[in-house]
Amino acid sequence: MITRRFVSRGHLIDSGILASILNLIVKEEAGYEIVKFEIGKTNANPSQLELDVTCGTSEQLAAVTLKLVQIGCYEKKATEALLKPAPGDCCAPEDFYSTTNHKTEVFHQGAWRPVAGQRMDAVIVIDGGKGARCSKLRDVRPGDLVVCSSESVRVFPPERDRIENDLFGFMANSVSSERSVNVAVAALAEELIRQRKSGGKVVAVVGPVVVHTGGADALGTLVREGYIHGLLSGNALAVHDLEYQFYGTSLGIDLKTGKSMSEGHKNHMKAINRICGHGSIKTAMESGDLTQGIMFETIRKGIPYCLAGSIRDDGPLPETETDMIKAQEAYAAVLEGATLVLMLASMLHSIGTGNMLPSWVRTVCIDINPAVVTKLSDRGSSQATGIVSDVGLFLRALAQKLSE
Amino acid sequence: MITRRFVSRGHLIDSGILASILNLIVKEEAGYEIVKFEIGKTNANPSQLELDVTCGTSEQLAAVTLKLVQIGCYEKKATEALLKPAPGDCCAPEDFYSTTNHKTEVFHQGAWRPVAGQRMDAVIVIDGGKGARCSKLRDVRPGDLVVCSSESVRVFPPERDRIENDLFGFMANSVSSERSVNVAVAALAEELIRQRKSGGKVVAVVGPVVVHTGGADALGTLVREGYIHGLLSGNALAVHDLEYQFYGTSLGIDLKTGKSMSEGHKNHMKAINRICGHGSIKTAMESGDLTQGIMFETIRKGIPYCLAGSIRDDGPLPETETDMIKAQEAYAAVLEGATLVLMLASMLHSIGTGNMLPSWVRTVCIDINPAVVTKLSDRGSSQATGIVSDVGLFLRALAQKLSE
Amino acid sequence: MITRRFVSRGHLIDSGILASILNLIVKEEAGYEIVKFEIGKTNANPSQLELDVTCGTSEQLAAVTLKLVQIGCYEKKATEALLKPAPGDCCAPEDFYSTTNHKTEVFHQGAWRPVAGQRMDAVIVIDGGKGARCSKLRDVRPGDLVVCSSESVRVFPPERDRIENDLFGFMANSVSSERSVNVAVAALAEELIRQRKSGGKVVAVVGPVVVHTGGADALGTLVREGYIHGLLSGNALAVHDLEYQFYGTSLGIDLKTGKSMSEGHKNHMKAINRICGHGSIKTAMESGDLTQGIMFETIRKGIPYCLAGSIRDDGPLPETETDMIKAQEAYAAVLEGATLVLMLASMLHSIGTGNMLPSWVRTVCIDINPAVVTKLSDRGSSQATGIVSDVGLFLRALAQKLSE
Amino acid sequence: MITRRFVSRGHLIDSGILASILNLIVKEEAGYEIVKFEIGKTNANPSQLELDVTCGTSEQLAAVTLKLVQIGCYEKKATEALLKPAPGDCCAPEDFYSTTNHKTEVFHQGAWRPVAGQRMDAVIVIDGGKGARCSKLRDVRPGDLVVCSSESVRVFPPERDRIENDLFGFMANSVSSERSVNVAVAALAEELIRQRKSGGKVVAVVGPVVVHTGGADALGTLVREGYIHGLLSGNALAVHDLEYQFYGTSLGIDLKTGKSMSEGHKNHMKAINRICGHGSIKTAMESGDLTQGIMFETIRKGIPYCLAGSIRDDGPLPETETDMIKAQEAYAAVLEGATLVLMLASMLHSIGTGNMLPSWVRTVCIDINPAVVTKLSDRGSSQATGIVSDVGLFLRALAQKLSE
Repeated sequence: MITRRFVSRGHLIDSGILASILNLIVKEEAGYEIVKFEIGKTNANPSQLELDVTCGTSEQLAAVTLKLVQIGCYEKKATEALLKPAPGDCCAPEDFYSTTNHKTEVFHQGAWRPVAGQRMDAVIVIDGGKGARCSKLRDVRPGDLVVCSSESVRVFPPERDRIENDLFGFMANSVSSERSVNVAVAALAEELIRQRKSGGKVVAVVGPVVVHTGGADALGTLVREGYIHGLLSGNALAVHDLEYQFYGTSLGIDLKTGKSMSEGHKNHMKAINRICGHGSIKTAMESGDLTQGIMFETIRKGIPYCLAGSIRDDGPLPETETDMIKAQEAYAAVLEGATLVLMLASMLHSIGTGNMLPSWVRTVCIDINPAVVTKLSDRGSSQATGIVSDVGLFLRALAQKLSE
Repeated sequence: MITRRFVSRGHLIDSGILASILNLIVKEEAGYEIVKFEIGKTNANPSQLELDVTCGTSEQLAAVTLKLVQIGCYEKKATEALLKPAPGDCCAPEDFYSTTNHKTEVFHQGAWRPVAGQRMDAVIVIDGGKGARCSKLRDVRPGDLVVCSSESVRVFPPERDRIENDLFGFMANSVSSERSVNVAVAALAEELIRQRKSGGKVVAVVGPVVVHTGGADALGTLVREGYIHGLLSGNALAVHDLEYQFYGTSLGIDLKTGKSMSEGHKNHMKAINRICGHGSIKTAMESGDLTQGIMFETIRKGIPYCLAGSIRDDGPLPETETDMIKAQEAYAAVLEGATLVLMLASMLHSIGTGNMLPSWVRTVCIDINPAVVTKLSDRGSSQATGIVSDVGLFLRALAQKLSE
Repeated sequence: MITRRFVSRGHLIDSGILASILNLIVKEEAGYEIVKFEIGKTNANPSQLELDVTCGTSEQLAAVTLKLVQIGCYEKKATEALLKPAPGDCCAPEDFYSTTNHKTEVFHQGAWRPVAGQRMDAVIVIDGGKGARCSKLRDVRPGDLVVCSSESVRVFPPERDRIENDLFGFMANSVSSERSVNVAVAALAEELIRQRKSGGKVVAVVGPVVVHTGGADALGTLVREGYIHGLLSGNALAVHDLEYQFYGTSLGIDLKTGKSMSEGHKNHMKAINRICGHGSIKTAMESGDLTQGIMFETIRKGIPYCLAGSIRDDGPLPETETDMIKAQEAYAAVLEGATLVLMLASMLHSIGTGNMLPSWVRTVCIDINPAVVTKLSDRGSSQATGIVSDVGLFLRALAQKLSE
Repeated sequence: MITRRFVSRGHLIDSGILASILNLIVKEEAGYEIVKFEIGKTNANPSQLELDVTCGTSEQLAAVTLKLVQIGCYEKKATEALLKPAPGDCCAPEDFYSTTNHKTEVFHQGAWRPVAGQRMDAVIVIDGGKGARCSKLRDVRPGDLVVCSSESVRVFPPERDRIENDLFGFMANSVSSERSVNVAVAALAEELIRQRKSGGKVVAVVGPVVVHTGGADALGTLVREGYIHGLLSGNALAVHDLEYQFYGTSLGIDLKTGKSMSEGHKNHMKAINRICGHGSIKTAMESGDLTQGIMFETIRKGIPYCLAGSIRDDGPLPETETDMIKAQEAYAAVLEGATLVLMLASMLHSIGTGNMLPSWVRTVCIDINPAVVTKLSDRGSSQATGIVSDVGLFLRALAQKLSE
């Protein structure tokens, strides 16, 4: 039997971390003994845990350790991180440590070093003198020093912020369509005002459904009024926005009357063709042909954005980034420093964004399909708060609330 | 080979009836020959069809006939309806004709007689001198003269009304959540104004989700302003409405703040208990304890309503009809003469209502779950137009539109 | 400032109870101080908590107490339960204690008394000498001694059973359609075998979709082989089962070929009429007319069942209980002593069942719609484990697995 | 008033084309007069229609003409196609004709010329001497001769094939989860056998959910047994397949036990890293490291495939095509000559595929979410037949049926 001592600190109880730790150990069929447990006497004080974990084999103990590390429990006696040189391009040593999206530190040269550029599914590379950073597999170069095994890594899952919980509390209960969305509208409006006042960075991840369901004017207003500071989407959102601005339709449906327009079905192709004639959305704006809309407000404000291409694109528009490697880089750049991410009815781009986002960035996901939030959560973006609603009606109500 | 001649009249082409007739015959592996087909030269003129259908056996021909009858094609040479006495209580002769929800006539004593009380899944009973009427199986009494076989029956599926199509056209396309609901709000508001002006009868079928999602005030306003003339629901809608009126909560969630209230979880039981203390909702109103809400407005206006019980009821409230036979009678009475039915997020009561409703009553179904409309349609209520949206936001937008 | 001391015992950490307690206090804006906390050193030992809760007013403290009681924390210094006579028929004193579905005790005559007939949304009545029992509001009679306030009540939320967790672990993660259902089939098969061997009572709550999706034969087999010991459903399940047994169709669709049958649309009415001709399902069996199917196997085995009526029923069948009060009584009787409840694609009857079921009865819910499990949970039946799948395919795979 | 004469030929009635034509004219507020209508006397004969359409303005008439053309009605007196040179790169003349996915002909140099490479949302370019072909906007080069206006174009919507209807009839009714999927399994198995026998080309569009839900072995078998002749997917499907082959898990969940594996969460990154170490999937196969699975069978059989990149990709794998322009070209190449397309739980790739596919290619879409089929249809791929089911269970049942 082999035993190793672990420690954990923080709001272990109310954030559910202690429960996770003990449940994990039992599930893994290891044994434990609590060596010390000091509970925070009041709400203001963190708790401290020290416990011994016992396994039959060292392999099993290594496996349990890896899992404990990922939920915020680390070895008491830190050992120097095991570094191995990457064997090739885009290729890490076999036992590389694979990151979560939580705040992470690695024990290197006698101290815990913070890891920069936190994101999930990365490796940790130690730069000579420059500390530790997340690196995507495809950015690994031969000889890069990669952290291997999980024994010198510690992870800090986000402690639930009570003020935040209070604000978004009602949404946190469950992903249900049976909630009064007016409360969510009010809470989000309040939060957007707070973000604007405090210089936060709000990034909107937007699907074309926003235009179909009549939310384009409202979202344009939010951008113009300074509530949005980054826009992530795909070719379709821009095409639908442009079709709506040029012809008043979305996929050929007149958004004022709901009727299918004469020649309407070709309007989205005409919109692309019109932009291609100008050369780009930007030149269409400069020529005075495009005078409003989501893309117009975004470009006029100089807000960073990226339209990622996809296999289903028509066109695409000149602004669309068709190479996915470059699109991911551009997304990551827009997300740098984000303090709030709004995911508006776009599963594809929301999951893409979730992959790049540290877990401490507050994220709100609005979709009529409850499965979207479940999926985000299944893929590790468990910080996302879900609101099941009609995104067009929601955005209109939000813009109205903000203008009061 | 046996041949029988059929006729059909009306907007056979644009309502798709002719296509249905021919497709059906081919599917049934029968043969046909068009004897005469006079197409309406212009939009104003109906078309006329006469065709011979040929089968190998008389059983097959009888089966095809039954199906043809149900889609609006009937034998040219009408024969007297075959009447058989019911063998027992709640029991029809084995070959009874089972009705659709379309307008129906039966050939009796030398003439086509209209059938009264049209609804689906009924038998047709001939009353001495009093003509034909739909009767539920359970209302059949021994000796009742029941129409058997389908050879003396003709059915008129609703021809699509072009004006109507125009108004609701955009919704008819498909049941998708990717539509701009603002257009639906405007179209429905216009229709409600038209109904009120023209003395129509609008019946709302309402689920408790209307209260959870913050639509209770809006629906109360619609009732008060005279847009609703009948209310069909269950115990839960009334309990949630009362909980909201008495305590501001719905299932314990404060609808103003979205937070779970102190003691909130028991508020719905308290609401039931409070009404039980008064004796009924009505006496609670008379005592001044209940002063607003959906039930309040409904009862004050003297609008006919029925709260049908169900297996999941708490309480139930004194007003709830716990016997399903009586509840169905009461529902049918409220639906008598309805000109528009709004189904608001209640699958159970919507299907129950659909079963009783003739197919020519315009029906709009609002639900966040697209499957509800599919289900209604699968069960024969294909006249229902679906709007996939958040019912609370929808009702608020509707009430706002109506007040402009 | 008023302070009260509370205690809690059990697997407080790994069941998440301690986290719930502290989060609740903070949410309610009360203060707390941990007086004593003895953590179970190993997995086998329960933990013990003692803490002081402080509020500004006695009303607030009462409210917090009520909520603490419901999650398993009770006052250290037990006081005699406050009993008040019910003021009228179906009417409790205004401050009645409203039950949860968890195991409950009340402090009466110097000792903690267990409450019999545990279910949610009931009142607790003290019978002279006979102890405490749950009573539905409608069963309250004038003068009944009803427990008021929550200060002398303690509640034991179910501790998560680790063995169980292990078995059903994979399902517990989240309600997602992206799981391999084969594992669920195997786990459930194993559990059904265990239940049969150990003399458990398995109650199936069944929707008509089971027949539409081709699961009737499989469910019939489960009944015949002794895996099911109670059946709860509605009129529709029985009608569809009978239609399938008599005519091979479900709502007129031939389940062998998937095609719409000649005269098929009236088969469900013919099935009802045929049973009415016999007088009942049972007499149809005795006459040899009905020889297989879900209802056949159920009745032949003498398994208790109830078909609850609903507003959407056709017929109904003679066996259907159309009065909801009586149907609820019958459901409760069938559920008495249940050790496993299978909810098969029937939201209405599943919620009805959930209302009556103590929280310690293991419950598995199989539905293609993930929202059903969310709804069950929202309504207090949080013990339900959800499997998102096609119920017909699932039951066939389950029956096949059980026959291996 | 301006009048123009149109003609249409084919199974106008049973395919619903005549109804569409007349409804369209009325909706557009134009007038019509039927000049000639010869109905096919029996099922074997096509019908012939000639009608005059009258509008108030020539603009309106042009608009109506465009819409008529798209549903299979064309001008009697064909005029030479109006050709205009493209003004620039990726840019068509403003009034370009935008294609549907139906079979199309253009009247050029005195005859109707078939259009090659049919797909939706393309322009038609006339090559000197080489006839007409579809060209994507982005492939248009300055000076290309582009067909403008719709007056010299005729379109042939697919006539419903009765044999086909018969086979897939039951699925065509509606997109409902309430069907017996066993019938679909049998019908599809029969169709796959027929395709293999007759040398058809079956292309599978596959989402990673196929692996999560336990369908990987079954799909691998289908590929190995020669039922699949092209594979379209994304990076994730391959990663999940490889993770499953290397480690037995999918997103870290053991597919045999349903339990979360030790270190399982990093298995998908390890799988990518392992392939990167080899250089490619193919070299991993050659080295003997990869010996089974969907990708293995596909590559071993030499079946054409494309893995399109997306914004949410991890890795990506060396085989993944990250440039969307190239990925679309590769998809189109795989789809060339397809006779049956199976869309297996992948909305993104299914819509991408639908965009490229002519409407006469039979398409079956299997997804647990009914909204996917609605979306495909909304975007023009109305030929898709939907089956709402659990894709893993479905594929296992299909493979079992095929092995009988």
